[in-house]
Amino acid sequence: MTNVSTRSATVVFQPSGRRGQVPLGIPIVEASRLLGVDIEAPCGEKQVCGKCKIRIEQGMFQKLGLVSKKEHAGHWRAGEEAYISAEEKEAGFRMGCMATVEGDLLIFVPEAARTGKQVVSKAPRQLDITLDPAVKQYSVDLKPPTLEDPTGDFERLCSALENTHGLTSLSMDLSVLRTLHAIMEKGNWQATVSVWMDREIILVKPGLNANIFGLAIDIGTTTVAAYVCDLVSGEVIETLSMMNPQVKYGEDVVSRISFHMENPDGLKRMSADLVDGLNGLVSQALSTRYSRPAPDKGSETEQVFRIQPHEIVDVCIVGNTAMHHILLQLDPAPLGEIPFTPALHHSLDIRARDLGLKINPAAHIFMLPIEAGFVGGDNVGVILAEAPHDQDDLQLIIDIGTNGELVLGNKKRLISSSCATGPALEGAQIEFGMRAAPGAIERVVIDPETFDVDYKVIGRDAWKNYSSPADMQAKGICGSGILDAVAQLFLAGIVEKSGVFSKNLASNRFRIRPATEMKEFVLAWADETSIGKDIVVTQLDIRHIQLAKASIYTGCKLMMRKMGVKRVDSVKIAGAFGSHVDCRLALVMGMFPDCAVEKIRSVGNAAGDGCRAALLNRDKRLEANKIAQQVEYIELTLEDDFQVQLMEAIHLPHMKDRFEHLWDDDNDA
Amino acid sequence: MTNVSTRSATVVFQPSGRRGQVPLGIPIVEASRLLGVDIEAPCGEKQVCGKCKIRIEQGMFQKLGLVSKKEHAGHWRAGEEAYISAEEKEAGFRMGCMATVEGDLLIFVPEAARTGKQVVSKAPRQLDITLDPAVKQYSVDLKPPTLEDPTGDFERLCSALENTHGLTSLSMDLSVLRTLHAIMEKGNWQATVSVWMDREIILVKPGLNANIFGLAIDIGTTTVAAYVCDLVSGEVIETLSMMNPQVKYGEDVVSRISFHMENPDGLKRMSADLVDGLNGLVSQALSTRYSRPAPDKGSETEQVFRIQPHEIVDVCIVGNTAMHHILLQLDPAPLGEIPFTPALHHSLDIRARDLGLKINPAAHIFMLPIEAGFVGGDNVGVILAEAPHDQDDLQLIIDIGTNGELVLGNKKRLISSSCATGPALEGAQIEFGMRAAPGAIERVVIDPETFDVDYKVIGRDAWKNYSSPADMQAKGICGSGILDAVAQLFLAGIVEKSGVFSKNLASNRFRIRPATEMKEFVLAWADETSIGKDIVVTQLDIRHIQLAKASIYTGCKLMMRKMGVKRVDSVKIAGAFGSHVDCRLALVMGMFPDCAVEKIRSVGNAAGDGCRAALLNRDKRLEANKIAQQVEYIELTLEDDFQVQLMEAIHLPHMKDRFEHLWDDDNDA
Repeated sequence: MTNVSTRSATVVFQPSGRRGQVPLGIPIVEASRLLGVDIEAPCGEKQVCGKCKIRIEQGMFQKLGLVSKKEHAGHWRAGEEAYISAEEKEAGFRMGCMATVEGDLLIFVPEAARTGKQVVSKAPRQLDITLDPAVKQYSVDLKPPTLEDPTGDFERLCSALENTHGLTSLSMDLSVLRTLHAIMEKGNWQATVSVWMDREIILVKPGLNANIFGLAIDIGTTTVAAYVCDLVSGEVIETLSMMNPQVKYGEDVVSRISFHMENPDGLKRMSADLVDGLNGLVSQALSTRYSRPAPDKGSETEQVFRIQPHEIVDVCIVGNTAMHHILLQLDPAPLGEIPFTPALHHSLDIRARDLGLKINPAAHIFMLPIEAGFVGGDNVGVILAEAPHDQDDLQLIIDIGTNGELVLGNKKRLISSSCATGPALEGAQIEFGMRAAPGAIERVVIDPETFDVDYKVIGRDAWKNYSSPADMQAKGICGSGILDAVAQLFLAGIVEKSGVFSKNLASNRFRIRPATEMKEFVLAWADETSIGKDIVVTQLDIRHIQLAKASIYTGCKLMMRKMGVKRVDSVKIAGAFGSHVDCRLALVMGMFPDCAVEKIRSVGNAAGDGCRAALLNRDKRLEANKIAQQVEYIELTLEDDFQVQLMEAIHLPHMKDRFEHLWDDDNDA
Repeated sequence: MTNVSTRSATVVFQPSGRRGQVPLGIPIVEASRLLGVDIEAPCGEKQVCGKCKIRIEQGMFQKLGLVSKKEHAGHWRAGEEAYISAEEKEAGFRMGCMATVEGDLLIFVPEAARTGKQVVSKAPRQLDITLDPAVKQYSVDLKPPTLEDPTGDFERLCSALENTHGLTSLSMDLSVLRTLHAIMEKGNWQATVSVWMDREIILVKPGLNANIFGLAIDIGTTTVAAYVCDLVSGEVIETLSMMNPQVKYGEDVVSRISFHMENPDGLKRMSADLVDGLNGLVSQALSTRYSRPAPDKGSETEQVFRIQPHEIVDVCIVGNTAMHHILLQLDPAPLGEIPFTPALHHSLDIRARDLGLKINPAAHIFMLPIEAGFVGGDNVGVILAEAPHDQDDLQLIIDIGTNGELVLGNKKRLISSSCATGPALEGAQIEFGMRAAPGAIERVVIDPETFDVDYKVIGRDAWKNYSSPADMQAKGICGSGILDAVAQLFLAGIVEKSGVFSKNLASNRFRIRPATEMKEFVLAWADETSIGKDIVVTQLDIRHIQLAKASIYTGCKLMMRKMGVKRVDSVKIAGAFGSHVDCRLALVMGMFPDCAVEKIRSVGNAAGDGCRAALLNRDKRLEANKIAQQVEYIELTLEDDFQVQLMEAIHLPHMKDRFEHLWDDDNDA
């Protein structure tokens, strides 16, 4: 029997996925702090700023093992209606500073209420491609209609486009036709025209006005990234990101498919939430004041501008097959059942208005093609960006997200496969896991003699050993941090080859929980954290990481066997995780087959880069379809010895000796 | 000063346009009866059937000279809420049997509450064209996906269509893709596929199921006609019609353009009302049980079927330029101002869903091209159907609707023009005018000796002289009736060459109204009518008809002058009016230049026929664009002597002697 003061409930915060037991009766904002989820509350919970608005999700969440109800957040408080409309109340919104934890809760924290924004590389890689976008601009000067020449506005415009720019057989979207006359008059019959694929007019602007923009969007199971590109210069002017709002329906692809199968309106809800999220990113881009060097002026003069909705004239989207299907409301159920058949492979051109995207309504959205049920347009994007099919060298590309996607090949042959890494490498499923946001432990070094831990958190340059404990404000562990930690625990001999903690460890950092007998190792003491408790790595966390790395290793190995090769010439690690991870440690952990260390490279968000390539060069769209058609997909789980191989790969290999020299230089290479 | 018992108000019923003064205080259903508008009231105004639901239009209606307010229909009565929802009440709906006339009213009678349905020829002309529609059907048998061949559903379907039917490079609309997997499973991987223009899959049905249908829609200023066509046989299975619901915003094109210019949301409202109306026609088609000979059975077996919304896979629309622009929400203002420039001439392909038409959402709507600001796709339809551009003979085609549209030409040259006939020839603007519905006087013969009148009403075969007065139940005069009447008044010497009534007429049918001095001639006595009063032709009615015929004649003459010809080889009268009118009388009236009477022919709804041709044969769509580009449009009002010519043409010519033999045979030839 527990007494009243220690009664507690399970609370899960989405989209971060952070969860844990918290005492009953505390405000939700306090619970969020205990679990390391920052909810915006600038007024200091004086209940006057209205920023901490969160939503109570209702229903049975079997995957999460809880039942969440409105009533579990306590009764409605006087004052909440000042910030929450009747519709919002109906939808489950509450003020985080007033609602309390009275039972198990699944709580969604809207983007606006989140403080720790995810860290996304703001400087995307330079792409080496010719700028030849699907949408191009042309300016024209027309003669106004007269009684002698009363030709219609559209034909008048077309003949000018033909005479001046050689464009023929053009059509025009109805939405453009509706404002054509007014715009021609406004611009005194001078206009700037955006043409899609040399065949359809999708925007006419009065006078000379050359601003057009495009979005390259990478929809991950957990994270969505969007590049806002200037289609005239080809430059990325902003990189935006958000959690995939569908996370609340399930953290991985399989749970989302289940959610669709168990709920008649599940597909529509998941699609609508994602479209809302994408519109949120669009709003962010529209509300920003950008600047660039003014044309025809000295480079010191800056031109300040905002993007108008109708100026976003093109969109390319990559995503894994399930994200693609759910966004488009294509039945994802077959993706979850043998033989894992997608609705289609080919790329799609969809009108922005048909998807509800609040940009130029005539804009087309190019959905990159799909390789197979488990390898989608994101992988096509990776291949587009890294171009193994153009090279003699045999490349192995590992894209690590919630799912792992693998490509092996060169100009002779390309094969791909998918492996279920689980979201552990993104910081989920890990007890103190969190996304790569300020406060996340991202680097760990453990002294093999003293077992003392040094670490670095995102948002602070100084390592712990050079800081006072209170300055660290650690909040959790992100994907690269947990991989570092496990590798270092292994290298320090704290964890054995099998992944279990060594016996008889003489360190106060190692301990066993009395109730559950779960073993854990303390990375950061409570006084170094902002959550007021020790941040630990548990035996279960290590298991999750082992399983993730084993599935990647097994995938690579089976693909190499399929291709009949023993070695690869280079390894590329793609994905946000790849940008943060220490490739040397990944090699030590045995995440992928042996390879010369100088041939291992992190290539960042290659899927997003490939998407951007398709946005900026229309030939890349054709190439994408060719790739999707040519690459051979292998279903790993169908290989007879898959389970055996996986179990063998679960151990931590001992390659430290061979690679020890790699650590000679410094700790943060 | 009038006393209370004789106080009255002006009531206008739409869409019929019937109007008049009625005593204050009477129920609206009674007012409708006084004005010859039948409102459905099967319960006999016992206020129990709820059928007589009408809508009070609110606002200042300057073109109609009245201010209509909700309050003018009396206070809300107990019992109305049984039939009228809160939203309907807000929108102005009332029960016609309970609401009363308490002031000037513009009343809209919804299709459901109308009894006298317009008479439309149910048997459209046989078209002499090859069946080659834009949408065709193909059946396929697929192998279900397996682990060895997990190719996506779309690619699987496409390769079957290529192997079996030679179709390549197909795309598929997203709406089809969304249900593709479920349909393939339902049909056990056998399917029937509808392909638009050999390039896009717009419908997939499980198994063998060959029903697909198309609509050819002719949108007139006053009347909308729709042919429901079986796209497999090419047969018309139903002809539907309705009044254009925009009539309440103005009876002619110019008033509608004004309504748009005076009301910020005018264009949207007019477009939405028309789309609602078209969806009403679609509902009618969907709710009908059709039958046809069963395939593979004896011809005695009938197959009964209904049309499903998704089976309507193609639509062609013709309309004059203003109707075209208003439907598509293209700014019609430039059509009303020099130089009368349309937004475009070329045909348009629009998705049904973008227009809100409730048929297959992937279906395309083909809007026929436009010749000029005042000659639209309806005229292109007439030319497509009559094909003057394929012949040596010089044809003059007169399409009489609310606007008159003229075509003159042969394979060497085609010119077109438009003339403002006004709606008199459709029965509007005529005191007892009405549309061609049961009870309308459609044929008139006047004895030149006795001035006695014989006539025929629509819906009754026996002429008046062979009936008892009470059986006639005449309600008003339709377009052909008024033309007959004026011609007969002239031939009988009752009306002079100038159009004015002769002096000193010794007939009780001729009289002068004391208050206004308006002269009138009685066609039907009150006891022969269902409206309880004499049906008369007034001096003003005659003026309207004279102006209409003069503008047609002037148009023809100026076009002939332009082409440098004195005679034409044949005259065709198109339009619903043309089907009912006695061509001999039109010639006697001087409606068009002299021509051998056997070369004058009524060709019915040629615009609709041309529209049907474009629906059933895709080459006709290309031909339509060629026609619209090649035909030379002449703006008649810009000819220097237009007004002079018009005034000269206003007189009634005396050609009776020459054509007297034409009446030798019978009266109804």
